[in-house]
Parts: sequence; C-alpha cells; structure tokens
Amino acid sequence: MKKVLKFGGTSIGTVERIQHVAKIIKREYDAGNKIIVVVSAMAGQTNDLIQLSQSVTNDFSKRELDVLLATGEQVTCALLAGALIKININAQSWLNWQIPILTEGEHTNSRIINMNVSKINNYLNEGVAVVPGFQGISKNGDITTIGRGGSDATAVALAKLFDADSCEIYTDVDGVFSSDPNKIPVAKKIDRISYDEMLELSSLGAKVMQSSAVQTAMMYNIPLQVRSTFTDRKGTTIFDQDNIDYSKSVTGVAYSKDDAKITLVGVEDKPGIAANIFEPLNKAQINVDMVIQNVSSDQKTTDITFTIKRNDLTKTKDILNTNQKIKYKNIIHNDKVAKVSIVGAGMVSTPGVTYKMFKALADDKINILAISTSEIKLSVIIDEEKTLNAVKKLHTIFELD
Amino acid sequence: MKKVLKFGGTSIGTVERIQHVAKIIKREYDAGNKIIVVVSAMAGQTNDLIQLSQSVTNDFSKRELDVLLATGEQVTCALLAGALIKININAQSWLNWQIPILTEGEHTNSRIINMNVSKINNYLNEGVAVVPGFQGISKNGDITTIGRGGSDATAVALAKLFDADSCEIYTDVDGVFSSDPNKIPVAKKIDRISYDEMLELSSLGAKVMQSSAVQTAMMYNIPLQVRSTFTDRKGTTIFDQDNIDYSKSVTGVAYSKDDAKITLVGVEDKPGIAANIFEPLNKAQINVDMVIQNVSSDQKTTDITFTIKRNDLTKTKDILNTNQKIKYKNIIHNDKVAKVSIVGAGMVSTPGVTYKMFKALADDKINILAISTSEIKLSVIIDEEKTLNAVKKLHTIFELD
Repeated sequence: MKKVLKFGGTSIGTVERIQHVAKIIKREYDAGNKIIVVVSAMAGQTNDLIQLSQSVTNDFSKRELDVLLATGEQVTCALLAGALIKININAQSWLNWQIPILTEGEHTNSRIINMNVSKINNYLNEGVAVVPGFQGISKNGDITTIGRGGSDATAVALAKLFDADSCEIYTDVDGVFSSDPNKIPVAKKIDRISYDEMLELSSLGAKVMQSSAVQTAMMYNIPLQVRSTFTDRKGTTIFDQDNIDYSKSVTGVAYSKDDAKITLVGVEDKPGIAANIFEPLNKAQINVDMVIQNVSSDQKTTDITFTIKRNDLTKTKDILNTNQKIKYKNIIHNDKVAKVSIVGAGMVSTPGVTYKMFKALADDKINILAISTSEIKLSVIIDEEKTLNAVKKLHTIFELD
Repeated sequence: MKKVLKFGGTSIGTVERIQHVAKIIKREYDAGNKIIVVVSAMAGQTNDLIQLSQSVTNDFSKRELDVLLATGEQVTCALLAGALIKININAQSWLNWQIPILTEGEHTNSRIINMNVSKINNYLNEGVAVVPGFQGISKNGDITTIGRGGSDATAVALAKLFDADSCEIYTDVDGVFSSDPNKIPVAKKIDRISYDEMLELSSLGAKVMQSSAVQTAMMYNIPLQVRSTFTDRKGTTIFDQDNIDYSKSVTGVAYSKDDAKITLVGVEDKPGIAANIFEPLNKAQINVDMVIQNVSSDQKTTDITFTIKRNDLTKTKDILNTNQKIKYKNIIHNDKVAKVSIVGAGMVSTPGVTYKMFKALADDKINILAISTSEIKLSVIIDEEKTLNAVKKLHTIFELD
C-alpha cells in the first residue's frame, strides 16, 4: 500500500514526540508500505514566527512572511528524517522546492495546484519521504504558504497526486467525536463518518481537520483516517456517504461560541436588498454565519436575522447604522447567543428528527431564537448560558452517549 | 559601486538590531550603491539547532543537519528583507536554491564553487538582495552548509563572483585590533592590514573573520573591510601587502590559550619518523599546532616538540605510549603553556625584531620554552601564567600602545 501519514504540531511538538512518531512510521514501513510523511511545524512555532515578524512591523511583507514561516516545517522535516535514520529507516526530507510543490494564489493564502511526483515515486522504493506541510512554491519560484491548518491540505493533495491508498491524519485526539469530549464527557468517538458530516462538524467547531482539506478529499474520493499519535486506538474513517451504513440518524452534536445575533425588522422586501446588507459587511471582513429571512405579515416588508462573531458586533452595527442603502424600521441584537447543531447524513431519510430536537429543547425550557437547516444539519440559535445543557440533552436523545 | 555587506549573528541578534541594520543598508543604498546583503543566523541560533539535533541523536544525519541549520539564516534573511521593505527600500530574500549557490564537498563542510549571478544582477537594478550566508546546494540539489563562520565565506564568494567593488564585514567590534582589547586595554584598532597579517592574527585567536574567507579574498584580491554594526567608526581595511605602507614592523600581538606542549626526547633520526608520530594523531583528530625539531648532540637521535590543545593531552599521550611505530627515550609534557606571537608584514625587512622580542621577554624573566617563525610571524611558547605580561610588554616595545 502507498500511504500518506500526516503529523500535526502537537504530535511532533518535542524531540521525544518526534522519536515516538518515528516509531509509528517504522511500524507502517516495516509492514511493507510505501510511506510519504507530511509534518506541521512544532506546536506554537508558527505563532512565534508570526509574532517575530509583527515585532518588525504589523504590515510585514507577505512574500517574506512565507519565507519566514516555511522554516517551521523545514525544522520538523529535518528532525523527523534524522530520527528515522537513527532507527535504521532510510529516510530523506523533501522540501517544497525540491519536489517541487506548485501553488497559485496570493502569498500566505495559496493553493496547491500540482507537484512533480516522479522523483519521490522513485525514492519510495528506497525509503520514507518526509515532506513539509503548509508550503509550496509559486511559478516564479517564490516560497508560498497555504494558510493555517494547511498541512492537512498538503497531505490530501499528496494522497491525490501520488494516488495513495490512504491518507492518515495523526493528531492529539482519538478521532472525530459525537461532540466536544472536553465538555460532554459522554461524547463518543465516531468510527465512520461521511465527508459531508465531517465538513459540518469541523466547520461547527470540532476542528480536527481543516475543512478545505476535507472538501478536496471528498472531491477526489480519497479515504481519510483521523487517529491519535499517542494511543493505538482505532481512529475515525471518513468515507463517501454511499459507503456508510446509517444505523443512526444523527452522528454528532456541535456548537459554536461567541456568537451574536442581529435582526433587522421591517426591511423593504425587494430584490437586491440582502446584497445591499451583506456586501458592506463582507467588505469589512465580517463573517456572517446563519442568515434567516421571514416574510412579515404585511408582505411588503421582511425581517432578516443573521449571526456574526461577537467581537464583530460593534463594527456591524456601525455599518448598518451609517450605510445609506440599508433601510429598516428597527434593529434588535443579542450578543449572548450560541449555535447548537445536530449533524447526520441519515437525517434526511429519518422522519421526525426536527420535531424530536425542538421537543427536547422545549422540555428543558430552552428557547429557540432562530433555526436553520440543511440536508445533513439542523442548527438552532439559543441563549448562550443554555449551550451545554442543550448539547447534553441532544446528545442523549439521539442516542450518542 | 557594487557592495557586498555581511552582518554577523550578533549584529542581527534581535528585532531591534535587524531594524538598525536596515538603516545602515538604507544609507548605503540611498548613496546610489548596488547592495547585496549576506546574513548569518541570529546569535546562538545555530548552536540551538545543533543541540536540538543532538537531542535526537549524537550521530544525526549530516544531510538532514544541513536542512535543519539552513533555517537559521532563512529566518534572518526574511526578517531583514521585511525590515527593509518597511522603511521603503525595495528588497527581497534570495535563498541558496533560488540563486542558486552551488557547493561541492561533504555535508556540513562544503565549499562554494559557483553561483548564478544573472538573476540577482538584474534584480540589483530594482532593489537590495538579501542572501543567507553559510549555505548552498549540491549538484544533486541537496541543501549544504559550509562550516562554522561560513557566512564570511559566502560574502567573499559573492564579492568575487559579482565582481563587487567592496566586501564589508559588519561585526560587533570596531575592526581588527593590535591585540585583544578586552585583555590589553591599550590595544589599538588597526586601520590597514595585509591579508597575510590578518590570517596570522585570526588563526591566533583574534577571530574577527573566518580564515578561509580571508584566504579567498587574498587569492582574488578582494578588498575587505571589517567594521562595527554599532558605531560609525571607520573599521579595518584588509588589502594586498603591496598596497600597504609599513611604518611599523609589527602590526599586532596575538596569543592562544589552553595549549599543552609535548617533547619526545631521543627519537631515532631517520626519514619518515615525523610522519609516524603525527599520522595517528591526525587520525584521532588531534590538531597539532607548532612543531619544532632539534638535532640532538649524538646526531643519531632527535628531540621533537609540538603543541596541542590542552584537552587533547591525555588522548595524545595514550597514542604516543601505545603506538608501536613511535620510539623515543623519554616523554616530557607541560599542560600550562600559551603561545604568544608578534605578527607583521614589515618584520621580514626590519632587522632585529627577533632579538628585540627575546630581550624584552628575558628582561621580564619570562622563560621561552619553544620558538617558531614564519615570514610575518614569530611565536614563542611560554608559561601560561605569564601570558598577559608578555603580550603587554611586546605590545609596548613594538610601539602598538
């Protein structure tokens, strides 16, 4: 088998952990697999380097920031290759420009578009290739980076271009959980999950993997595994939906914190009005999450509710108050809300899930402030102080404990 | 003018210092010069990375060690380029593989053999090129490093291949001194010195520049300047001997510490005997410094004296005692000796320098244990505790105060 193994920053955060990771790789290599390893920078290193650049100037050159940040993975790459050689595994670091990994797009936010596979493919007959995640080179030959969490994207891109049989993401948790195990002690590790569900869960705060990497894996149907560097437990396998047998309608309960809700009451109901509202927010880099629009009773005006991150609230209100194009009768906001979501690819074929959720929350006197649904997700906005109560309740009634 | 400016690890050891260095470069750039900058890693960084590798294993892969160490200069390169851009100087980092700088030889101990100058030469019309010292790539495309202090070698190689008008070594001292200014307060900065004198002084402990870089500069007649990053004082210019007017016979007084002296008495005087003694020492990586051979009175045997570093003494005695090929009557050793040398390109044409030195030491009752001479240097071995007395005395009588 040809395998891509990716180790995150916590997994290789110390020399002892790097030596431990070398043993995991040895086990896979000794089993006869061809191994490409992708490494992140040591935990905290990328932040330290960003801080260093900011102590020069807050407006540090993005080209040079990429040159600076790329050293983080170069260090772990060399250390891990050295640790493998020490335990008699033939290994070699392959830097972004040595492969090369080609990217396009802006500095600090590039995308991998291609890489040369022939040299490494030859090398895999001799030993383990260790590749720095998160980085590449542009067609001008400049070092580029592909955004935070980009090592996941590197791993998936390698798995795709090298036609690997599996892509294994080693991290500091046992896998993907039905909810946050730190807050919901009864949360359980999920053995199998679909790409879509994984995307919903990770975009909702269960940050085991970078979302765009999961999307790429889904697009090219690359089987992913998320598992722990520190235990031998079986992790979570992420598959195409068709390959999963749904015994349960709901796979997990996720929640996000630090949300705020804004309702514009009595907005004139005509085409283009939503664009008028959200364009200036987008320009101000305010991330709008849920958007709900109700037709009002007079059918000439409408109410628009949306959620944003709490620390964007003042800026958002300023824009809504001062922008001439945005007309409404009244503005209501609540800055102490949270979003709780149930996620499950089986939901669409299971009647009554929606009712069951609403009833459970009502039984516990948890007021629903807004609702949004998709094929595999049902989200509600509630008072923030009720968040954990709601998550625990939903976790129980959908039999996830 | 086209200039190569090199900044050592102390000169760029903090963000504030990097910002200060950016201002020095701006001054040179605004004066209309074309500037290539060479940077070392931040002071201490290379040692930290070596330690990191040794905490994986003492026998860390040399290929991967080079990949690891190269990150040190990559960091300073990016930070300095960013600091220049911040003060509106167009600047760009140029990494070893982007130029590229080609090397040959073993990992961790390579030599620069060539580089592509056309891309950077074009770029110099637009801005300042910032190049990491100490590193290059092999013809296989592996990262290589060129040994400790290698940034000086990079600077001189760039000055040669880019046909620069000057090569300026910015460091944490004002220039080359007539003796160690920390120990001999009357030591003076030398304004002009020949390559040969500089080589003798730096190999004797005045480590302002790496010796092999001075040798390269001498070979290609590249004018060097050594000056301080932290003051505006004029530094030391290092020239070809012919361009220097020698008003003084002696330029400086150097000394080395931690030496030990060994004398083999009654060694059989036949061809090949010296090789028999020094070959096993060389194999054991014991660095032999001075070697003096006297014919003994019976003309059949000879006495051989040599100096080594003190911490090699036990190993050296073991080899001399156990190696069957080395035959002698008696072994004498003294582990509390120091070497004091006067250096000056004018010595050869000034009669009486030797006598003056010996007389001065005799006047102060400093016993000379061994003597070695070259065209521009006269070294004596003395008791270690007399070292500073001897250096001060010689500094005075040769009118260097």
